[in-house]
Amino acid sequence: MRTFTFFQRLSKAFHGYDSHFKLVLLCTTVSGGGLLAYGEAVAQSEAAVVKEEKKKVVVLGTGWAGTSFLKNLENPRYEVHVVSPRNYFAFTPLLPSVTCGTVEARSIVEPVRNIFRKKNVKVDFSEAECLKIDAANRKVYCRSSISNNSNEKDEFVVDYDFLIIAVGANVNTFNTPGVVENCHFLKEVEDAQKIRRTVIDCFERASLPSVSEEEKKRILHFAIVGGGPTGVEFAASLHDFVNEDLVKLYPGIKDLVKITLLEAGEHILSMFDKRITSFAEDKFRRDGIDVKTGSMVVKVSDKEISTKEMKNGGEITTMPYGMAVWSTGIGTRPFIRDFMTQIGQINRRAVATDEWLRVEGTNNVYALGDCATINQRKVMEDIAAIFKKADKDNSGTLTVKEFQEVLDDICERYPQVELYLKTRQMNDIADLLKEAKGDVAKESIELSIEELKTALSKVDSQMKFLPATAQVASQQGTYLAKCFNRMEECEKNPEGPIRFRGEGRHRFKPFRYKHLGQFAPLGGEQAAAQLPGDWVSIGHSTQWLWYSVYASKQVSWRTRALVVSDWTRRFIFGRDSSQI
Amino acid sequence: MRTFTFFQRLSKAFHGYDSHFKLVLLCTTVSGGGLLAYGEAVAQSEAAVVKEEKKKVVVLGTGWAGTSFLKNLENPRYEVHVVSPRNYFAFTPLLPSVTCGTVEARSIVEPVRNIFRKKNVKVDFSEAECLKIDAANRKVYCRSSISNNSNEKDEFVVDYDFLIIAVGANVNTFNTPGVVENCHFLKEVEDAQKIRRTVIDCFERASLPSVSEEEKKRILHFAIVGGGPTGVEFAASLHDFVNEDLVKLYPGIKDLVKITLLEAGEHILSMFDKRITSFAEDKFRRDGIDVKTGSMVVKVSDKEISTKEMKNGGEITTMPYGMAVWSTGIGTRPFIRDFMTQIGQINRRAVATDEWLRVEGTNNVYALGDCATINQRKVMEDIAAIFKKADKDNSGTLTVKEFQEVLDDICERYPQVELYLKTRQMNDIADLLKEAKGDVAKESIELSIEELKTALSKVDSQMKFLPATAQVASQQGTYLAKCFNRMEECEKNPEGPIRFRGEGRHRFKPFRYKHLGQFAPLGGEQAAAQLPGDWVSIGHSTQWLWYSVYASKQVSWRTRALVVSDWTRRFIFGRDSSQI
Ligand SMILES: Cc1cc2nc3c(=O)[nH]c(=O)nc-3n(C[C@H](O)[C@H](O)[C@H](O)COP(=O)(O)OP(=O)(O)OC[C@H]3O[C@@H](n4cnc5c(N)ncnc54)[C@H](O)[C@@H]3O)c2cc1C
Ligand SMILES: Cc1cc2nc3c(=O)[nH]c(=O)nc-3n(C[C@H](O)[C@H](O)[C@H](O)COP(=O)(O)OP(=O)(O)OC[C@H]3O[C@@H](n4cnc5c(N)ncnc54)[C@H](O)[C@@H]3O)c2cc1C
Repeated sequence: MRTFTFFQRLSKAFHGYDSHFKLVLLCTTVSGGGLLAYGEAVAQSEAAVVKEEKKKVVVLGTGWAGTSFLKNLENPRYEVHVVSPRNYFAFTPLLPSVTCGTVEARSIVEPVRNIFRKKNVKVDFSEAECLKIDAANRKVYCRSSISNNSNEKDEFVVDYDFLIIAVGANVNTFNTPGVVENCHFLKEVEDAQKIRRTVIDCFERASLPSVSEEEKKRILHFAIVGGGPTGVEFAASLHDFVNEDLVKLYPGIKDLVKITLLEAGEHILSMFDKRITSFAEDKFRRDGIDVKTGSMVVKVSDKEISTKEMKNGGEITTMPYGMAVWSTGIGTRPFIRDFMTQIGQINRRAVATDEWLRVEGTNNVYALGDCATINQRKVMEDIAAIFKKADKDNSGTLTVKEFQEVLDDICERYPQVELYLKTRQMNDIADLLKEAKGDVAKESIELSIEELKTALSKVDSQMKFLPATAQVASQQGTYLAKCFNRMEECEKNPEGPIRFRGEGRHRFKPFRYKHLGQFAPLGGEQAAAQLPGDWVSIGHSTQWLWYSVYASKQVSWRTRALVVSDWTRRFIFGRDSSQI
Repeated sequence: MRTFTFFQRLSKAFHGYDSHFKLVLLCTTVSGGGLLAYGEAVAQSEAAVVKEEKKKVVVLGTGWAGTSFLKNLENPRYEVHVVSPRNYFAFTPLLPSVTCGTVEARSIVEPVRNIFRKKNVKVDFSEAECLKIDAANRKVYCRSSISNNSNEKDEFVVDYDFLIIAVGANVNTFNTPGVVENCHFLKEVEDAQKIRRTVIDCFERASLPSVSEEEKKRILHFAIVGGGPTGVEFAASLHDFVNEDLVKLYPGIKDLVKITLLEAGEHILSMFDKRITSFAEDKFRRDGIDVKTGSMVVKVSDKEISTKEMKNGGEITTMPYGMAVWSTGIGTRPFIRDFMTQIGQINRRAVATDEWLRVEGTNNVYALGDCATINQRKVMEDIAAIFKKADKDNSGTLTVKEFQEVLDDICERYPQVELYLKTRQMNDIADLLKEAKGDVAKESIELSIEELKTALSKVDSQMKFLPATAQVASQQGTYLAKCFNRMEECEKNPEGPIRFRGEGRHRFKPFRYKHLGQFAPLGGEQAAAQLPGDWVSIGHSTQWLWYSVYASKQVSWRTRALVVSDWTRRFIFGRDSSQI
């Protein structure tokens, strides 16, 4: 009885105290002293509602980009309407862990309503997908993702003053025949859950008394198409799941299991440092994962995969498989393609925006994350305008001093300039100008427009497309929210670089991506990491770094606690193989 | 770096030490000092395999009955083949908690392969459903529950020496039109997950801008059909979920929510003590749950439920609803009905067995749990045989002494005798005989067969059908396994009561159910319990008793840890409302 009374009291205490107290208690309980996750404590006070008319902001999508925008938007002058077919945010980097039950699906999702619940900005949410954007009339057409009792889906229209497109990308099958019908994908939470069930299905089917040995082998052949980070991580997780957990429960068939990783290129993890690539390839080989590089999938039937073997002169071979996961490339959602046609962006993979994330060809639509790409401005396109702005005395030539006065603006507006100087190991723009001018004293350099062109001719080669990652999407969301928060302020006191082709300054500084490094978990409690400055780290301690970074990056204390307790559970009890 | 090294070491330690050590550690971590679950530590040594030919035991079903049989079977002379469409055991009493996310689905399931993995009995498992039992040829026909890649399902046949039928029951809709098409059920884990998603769906749909106020009201009307323990617990959970969690996330529509509990009888929880029934009815009324008793559902359409109101002379009324859960009565699975016809058991709800759980009309088929019912033998049917056995000196009359010599066997064979004595508050059978004989001295009583009939005439009124509960099913499984463990031993030295209608003794003591009490969780951290001896307990402390009993009853340490951590999580963070 003592315990009950104690717990009842505790219960009351809990419901009385605020959530920070609960969290401290939770940490003591769940994280058991280790891997204590830290996180941004977002303090929100219910601010007074502004009287003036509010601007309607419509946000499409609740992924990395959309959610980070919502989390950071703080100006109560906006009235936000979020439209997304999922009422939750999903922490995609842990999706591969969900496929094998290392982490539960529910541990990596957070209801979006929870994210904006205590904000002082009014936010509405509709669980619906956007079907069409009508940029001319500032409307989006939406359809509920849930059927009503009579199997119909509600449709509705939403008006906007500003539209934020953050709908991510969909899978790209490169029109390979049979992929949609026969392969699993790994984009959504449901995909990961389905993969998990199918892996268990394969083991259960292969245990049936009526199945022949050959058929068992086929059923237990897992093929993964795509040697990028996702495919590699899934292969590693599956290998661990099979070897650490399933072999104990299915001892009779464990030797029939085979995992094959198919990659069209010459190496897996090709976006990583060579050291990581070769470590991963070696580890997989040792683990018995069959890594087939130079192998391009050309067709998938219900029981066979056909590949074109680059190393054998393009020969077509086929192999039987039980389950295939397609994890290569991203494509454009159809309604985004329509929108792009509408605004004259044709033949592009993603919506082109300027460096302020504003969609080109519109002035109140923004796009960010996987569905967008920043169309960086070339220095060479603007060279005449730059020369004109810099040549203050209109002398027709540019002195080093004149040039240096606009240099900060140039570097801000055209980040490739700074990058170029860095790769050439130059400290000073004067060195670059000197190159164009030959060996003269710095102070006396004067350049004509043609000479400036020569000096800057190679700079644009440094332009880089941003990768389609959560890091980019979430930084863009934060950036855009901060711009929105200070819209009026910056309207009055613009803080961006000089407008070289116009008057005055840009309102905001352009978006600048800060790369924080990238992980590649390789299974067996080992991971590789490529950190800024090309610092490479591989092994067990990197896996622990991975654990702590991923715990700290969780969107809420709830998911953080759940993810950590899932890891603890896996550590003690292994992964569950119940077919649910 | 220090932390990593510590954890790495710990990791190694973990993988080295045995699971008991891990558990101690887990308890310290997860249960955080409270509600420490206790459980049976099953120690299994890999025993030597017996050389003689093994008997094939086929077990159908991995529910309460089947699993408790498997857990307790220890004789390596059997070779077991388990057939069930689910590769896991599900702790059904927590299913209502899963519907609202108080507990996760995965926390209440345990792979059956884990349950028998370390047994010294050889156990095979096939994830398949039994389609047909051929008792004459000792075969069961099965079909895999998983489609292969070409959308076909494998079929196979299994032979048996002994067959254990433990397939549970299915839902009974009493042929009410529209129920199958429009209602949710709450029998399987998938049902609970579907209910959870649908509740969120209703809230999301009711939040769409295009939906009228009236339609919102309809969508948010949750109707529960059946005022038994499951219906009541679901209604209570739903009420808590809505009022503790959803109102915060859907503030605009919270006042439109309505929960109705429909019960055809006069009271809800009618199998419980009156005090519990009226407490529950009052609490629900206070909570705003509309309890409609005397209301029989006669039809369910896509948007309306029609009921016959007993209190209004059988008037038919209809009401709009958004989601309906049907939770009343259990029925027979079709293949069991076929089997019953095969063995001449017609017009029964469940497979009839004798008190040793053997199916009547067969001699090597056993049935237990919800699919079976024990056909208790009446004293009156056997009265002549009893008289004959007891009358050792063949005098044609029975002395008290003669009767007392067989009394233990009678009480064992016919439990109603003991029950009858108890309800009449008699200590001694002599008192009963005296009643028949008038007021004579105990020693001098001598009874004719007719007088014995009079004395025992009311005894059979005490026969009770066992309820379809997990308690009964699991006790039956344990009982049967123990019989199987000692089959040869008891063949030689039978330990059951005298065979009144035959020679010698029964091999085993008949199954005897021990009622341990029953809980009814009522929401708001309150529960009611009816414990043996009609002890009734209601309130917050009963809820804590419920927590500790349910934690202790978990089938494995893994599920126990998960369930406790789910409760802790709910306690701190509330229930999740992501739509997955
Ligand atoms: C398995 C996997 C692992 C990954 N691992 C990493 C990693 O470790 N590190 C990393 O940096 N990146 C990782 N990524 C990439 C990262 O997830 C994406 O780059 C990131 O999600 C992009 O964010 P986004 O907001 O643009 O799109 P998403 O996060 O995909 O969100 C898109 C949102 O739009 C919604 N939506 C879709 N259609 C519509 C519609 N018609 N109308 C309205 N809304 C719509 C979706 O429901 C979703 O809410 C991984 C991706 C996957 C699939
Ligand atoms: C929501 C809910 C709450 C409950 N709460 C309680 C409670 O609190 N206390 C209590 O005592 N009881 C409770 N019960 C009742 C209890 O669950 C049942 O009495 C118990 O499950 C019966 O056990 P069983 O083994 O007979 O059947 P089940 O546990 O139903 O198991 C049947 C098994 O047979 C398998 N099967 C089905 N068809 C086939 C086939 N064709 N071939 C082979 N296998 C098959 C199933 O997959 C399953 O594994 C509850 C029931 C429900 C639905």
